Amino acid sequence: MEKNEKIHADMQALGRAACAAARIVAKADTATKNHALAMMARAIRRDEALLLAANAKDVAQARNKGLESAMIDRLTLTSRGVVSMATGLEQIATLPDPIGAMTDLDYRPSGIQVGKMRVPLGVIGIIYEARPNVTADAAGLCLKAGNAAILRGGSEAIQSNQAIAICVREGLRSAGLPEQTMQVVETTDRAAVSALITMSEYVDVIVPRGGKGLIERITNEARVPVIKHLDGVCHVYVDLSADLEKAVRVADNAKTQRYGTCNTMETLLVHTGIAEQFLPRICQIFLEKEVELRGDEAACALVSRMKPAVEEDWYAEYLAPILSVRIVADIDEAITHIATYGSQHTDTIVTENYSRARQFLREVDSSSVMVNASTRFADGFEYGLGAEIGISTDKLHARGPVGLEGLTSQKFIVLGDGHIRE
Amino acid sequence: MEKNEKIHADMQALGRAACAAARIVAKADTATKNHALAMMARAIRRDEALLLAANAKDVAQARNKGLESAMIDRLTLTSRGVVSMATGLEQIATLPDPIGAMTDLDYRPSGIQVGKMRVPLGVIGIIYEARPNVTADAAGLCLKAGNAAILRGGSEAIQSNQAIAICVREGLRSAGLPEQTMQVVETTDRAAVSALITMSEYVDVIVPRGGKGLIERITNEARVPVIKHLDGVCHVYVDLSADLEKAVRVADNAKTQRYGTCNTMETLLVHTGIAEQFLPRICQIFLEKEVELRGDEAACALVSRMKPAVEEDWYAEYLAPILSVRIVADIDEAITHIATYGSQHTDTIVTENYSRARQFLREVDSSSVMVNASTRFADGFEYGLGAEIGISTDKLHARGPVGLEGLTSQKFIVLGDGHIRE
Repeated sequence: MEKNEKIHADMQALGRAACAAARIVAKADTATKNHALAMMARAIRRDEALLLAANAKDVAQARNKGLESAMIDRLTLTSRGVVSMATGLEQIATLPDPIGAMTDLDYRPSGIQVGKMRVPLGVIGIIYEARPNVTADAAGLCLKAGNAAILRGGSEAIQSNQAIAICVREGLRSAGLPEQTMQVVETTDRAAVSALITMSEYVDVIVPRGGKGLIERITNEARVPVIKHLDGVCHVYVDLSADLEKAVRVADNAKTQRYGTCNTMETLLVHTGIAEQFLPRICQIFLEKEVELRGDEAACALVSRMKPAVEEDWYAEYLAPILSVRIVADIDEAITHIATYGSQHTDTIVTENYSRARQFLREVDSSSVMVNASTRFADGFEYGLGAEIGISTDKLHARGPVGLEGLTSQKFIVLGDGHIRE
Repeated sequence: MEKNEKIHADMQALGRAACAAARIVAKADTATKNHALAMMARAIRRDEALLLAANAKDVAQARNKGLESAMIDRLTLTSRGVVSMATGLEQIATLPDPIGAMTDLDYRPSGIQVGKMRVPLGVIGIIYEARPNVTADAAGLCLKAGNAAILRGGSEAIQSNQAIAICVREGLRSAGLPEQTMQVVETTDRAAVSALITMSEYVDVIVPRGGKGLIERITNEARVPVIKHLDGVCHVYVDLSADLEKAVRVADNAKTQRYGTCNTMETLLVHTGIAEQFLPRICQIFLEKEVELRGDEAACALVSRMKPAVEEDWYAEYLAPILSVRIVADIDEAITHIATYGSQHTDTIVTENYSRARQFLREVDSSSVMVNASTRFADGFEYGLGAEIGISTDKLHARGPVGLEGLTSQKFIVLGDGHIRE
C-alpha cells in the first residue's frame, strides 16, 4: 500500500507538471512546435546507435522472460525503424497547425459575431504496449496539436522508451518549450496506469494503444474520458448488383492484404442471387492463400472446402487467415447482420446499384462505411489525416481514424463592440 | 435489493427498446421527423387543460412536502409555458436536419473519395430536475437529431412529465415512428438513475440538466459518457485600453441582466491603470442595483462600500447579486486569475487593443471567449444554434452551448470503384 501511495504521489506530480506545460505549449506558435519536432527527429537520427543499444537490452530481457515472438517482433527496433520514427516526426511538422484556426465567424441579429476557434485538449495520457515507436509518434502528434502528454509504454520497452524520451526532451528544449510537455512514466508498476487514468483533475483524455485486454481494463477503470478502439469485425457485403470483378478484387484485398490489422475483413456477406457466381470464385482465391473458411449452410453447399460456422464465428475478430461467410436474402438482412454482430468499425458494400449504395451508407452505423472499396483503406494516412493516433470505435468526440483534429477541441469566440444582451 | 433488481431489469428493458427504436429513427427522413414534431406540438396545445391539471397535482404535492419556493417555481407550468413548449417543438421542426449531411468528399491519391456523414449518437439519456418543459424540449431535440432518448425527470414533476409524454408519443405515432423513440421513466426511484447512467450497452451519452449536486453525483457514478455543465464562474476583464463606455455597459449587463444564470459574471477583473476611472463608476451602478461588492485590497481602496474578498470568493458562483472585484497588473495576471479560479465557461475582455484582444481569445481556455461583449450572450439561441440541450464545460465532443450538432456524430464514408489498398 505504501508503494502504491508513493506511485500515486509521483503520478500526481507528473500531472501537475503536465498541466503547467500544457498552458505554455497551448500558446506556442507553429514555428516553435515545428522546430521542436525537427530537433526531436535530428536527435533520434543522431542517437540511432544509442537507441538500438537500449532496445537490445529490452529485447534480451524479453527473451529471457520467454515473451512470445509476436511481442518481441513489436518490441524490436531496427535501424529502419529508427529512421522511420524521425521521418514520422518530420512529416508531422509539415502538417497544417490545427490550433487557433477560427471558423464560421457569422454575424448574429444581435450584432455580435460568433465563431469557433480550434484549441488543444490539454493533457493527454497515452498508454501503450510493446512498440517503442509510439513514444515518438504520440509525442509528435500531441505536441503539434498543442497538448502536453504523459506517455506510459509497456514495461518490456522501458529502456527503449526512455532513450527515445531523451531525444524528445532535447527537441522541446531546443525550441524553448518545457521538457514536461512530454513526460515518459519511469516506473513499470501497474499502479502508475491506475493513477493516470483516474486523475481527472490533471488529465483530459486517455488514448490507449494496444490489445483488447488492455483497452477493456482501462475503459472499466478510467475516470478520465477514453478515446478507444475495441474490435474490428469488418464486413464486405457483395450485393446482387455487384460488379463481379470489383467484388473479387475488394474481398480479396480486404481479407488477404494483411491478416492482423483491425480493418481486415472478418465476415463476407453475399447476396443469395449472386452467391453461385461469386462465392466459388472468391473462395478459390482464399483457399489458395490458405484462408480457412467457415460458412453458413447455404455457403457450405456452394464451396466444398468450407467448414460450418458456429454462432461465435459471426462475432469473431480472427486477426488471422480465417474468414466467416454468410449468404443473405437482401441488403436489409446484410445491414441487420452488421448491426447485430459487427463492431461499428468498417464495412463495405460492393454494388453498382445507386439506391442500395445510398442505403448502405446511411444505415450502417460504423466509423467507416464504404462503397466499392476495400476495408483496408480505413486508416489515417489513407484518409489524408497525415498521421493517426488510433482508430476510434466510439461515437463521441472522435470516430474512425483519429488524427491531429481528434486531439483538439473547439471553443466559441464572440466578437462584439460593447454589445449587451437585451 | 429485490426492488432494485426489478428496477434494473425494467431499465434494461427500456434500454433495449430504445436501441431498437434508435435504429429506426436514425433512418427516418426529415419530413417524418418534422411531422412528428408538429403533431407533438398540436397534442400539447390541444391537451393544455390536461397538462395543467396534471401539473397542479405535482405542485400541490410539492407544497405538501414543503419544497422550497424556487423549486415550486421551476415546477409550475402556466398556460404560457404550455404554449411555449409547443412553439419550441415547432421551432425545432424548422431547423435544418443535421443527419445524413455529407461533407468534405475529397479524392485521395489512391483514387478513393473520402468524406464524412453526420449521424445520430443513438440513445441519449436525459436526467433533469423539476422543470417539466425539459420533457418536450429534450424529446424534440433528440428526435430531430435522429436519436432515441430515455427521459428521467424529477420525481416532483412525475405527473406533468407523464402527461407531456402522452403528447410526445402521439406525435411519434402520427408520423409512423416507434413510441419507444422517446420513453419517460415511470418510477421515481433513484435506482432508475443509477441503472440509466451505467448501462453503456444501451445508452450512448447522458445529458444531465440541473443543479451542481445532481451533475456531480451523475459524473461520479456514470459508466456512460456525460455531456455536462458544472460551474459558471464567468469573468469580465477590463483592460487598460478599454473604452470606458463599453466597459460599463458590458460589465453592468454581464452582472445585472439576470443574476441566477450560469453565464452571469461572478468576478470583475480591472487593469490597475484604468481602475481609478472605471471602478467607482461601475460600482455606483452595482450599488444602486443592490449588488454586494467584495474586492481585493486595491479595489476596496477605490470603492468605500466594498467589503474585503476572501480566497473562496474568487472560486464562487454566487448566482446572486454579489460580485467579486480584483485589480490586476496586466492582461497576463488576468488570464492567470481566470485559469486559476475560473470554470472554463465564459470570459470576456473589454479592450480597444488589437494584440491584447487576440491574446485573450487565444489564451483563455474557456468554452466561450469574448471581446467587448457581455458574457450573457453565451447561449444556444444567441449563437444561432436554434435551440440548446445544455452548455458543456467539458472539452471532449461538445464545448459550450450544445445544439442539434452536439447530439450527433460523424462517420467516415469512402466511395470507390473497386479500389483496393496496395
